[in-house]
Amino acid sequence: MKILGLDPGLGTTGWGLVEADGNRLRHLANGQVKTDAKEALPQRLSHLALQIDALIKDHDPDCAAVEEIFVNKNPQSTLKLAQARGALLAVCAQGGIEVGEYAARLVKKSVVGVGNAEKRQVHDMVKVLMPGIKIAGSDAADALAVAITHAHHAASRARGL
Amino acid sequence: MKILGLDPGLGTTGWGLVEADGNRLRHLANGQVKTDAKEALPQRLSHLALQIDALIKDHDPDCAAVEEIFVNKNPQSTLKLAQARGALLAVCAQGGIEVGEYAARLVKKSVVGVGNAEKRQVHDMVKVLMPGIKIAGSDAADALAVAITHAHHAASRARGL
Repeated sequence: MKILGLDPGLGTTGWGLVEADGNRLRHLANGQVKTDAKEALPQRLSHLALQIDALIKDHDPDCAAVEEIFVNKNPQSTLKLAQARGALLAVCAQGGIEVGEYAARLVKKSVVGVGNAEKRQVHDMVKVLMPGIKIAGSDAADALAVAITHAHHAASRARGL
Repeated sequence: MKILGLDPGLGTTGWGLVEADGNRLRHLANGQVKTDAKEALPQRLSHLALQIDALIKDHDPDCAAVEEIFVNKNPQSTLKLAQARGALLAVCAQGGIEVGEYAARLVKKSVVGVGNAEKRQVHDMVKVLMPGIKIAGSDAADALAVAITHAHHAASRARGL
């Protein structure tokens, strides 16, 4: 099962492709799509959507995974994130792939083992789980982490857990 | 100038098409796109995006207009709205049309004359400005109101005001 993990963001969207065979994981690719802050919002959203659409067409993932969203202390940041997320989820559905949504706590618990792990620990653990890979940046690492979470949960579901 | 007004919403997105020639306005069409609350979020966003994309292809508007967004008392509603808005703005940019963003106060001031007008007054005034039209619902009326706002501001800009 090929999983596309996404970490949506208006400025930078991270992505990570993972092949999962039961509990075995293999890294396929990861990267970050950036948008130009000088461009208008619709153009930036369109850029993200087109890049992720191309990725789906190139790699043909079976499913996608993304973190759940909540309103944090900075409403303006939340609105930017939510609009980027909306554009990307629409692209996933148009590409015919289902999207799993996971709480941030669950991603940390799946990857590190504890729900209150630091961001740094998550990234270090992604490298441990997929040794030798080159990670494009912290957003790509987050995207890989949510893809790994999806793989674990799919494996658990397959075992009827 | 053909203007597509949009009132994004995850459950219902209103749209309204207006032809503006200086200060003269002509109603072309309006409607509402609904999504099924039983469907997953990505499917609902995709449905909205595809419908508005078809609308843009059918009617070939010169530009689009939408209300600005802010985080209100209900964070969950804001997140749904923002994700729908993001999917639709990406579609507008992909269709090659620029999007004007207007504060809710400015829409009320443009259509009714006062920035604190009631929703009902805005709808009544839309009917006065475009007599005899059939409005698909309150979201379509809001979409027409923001299209009218865009027309007024484009006319002011053209006169150098």
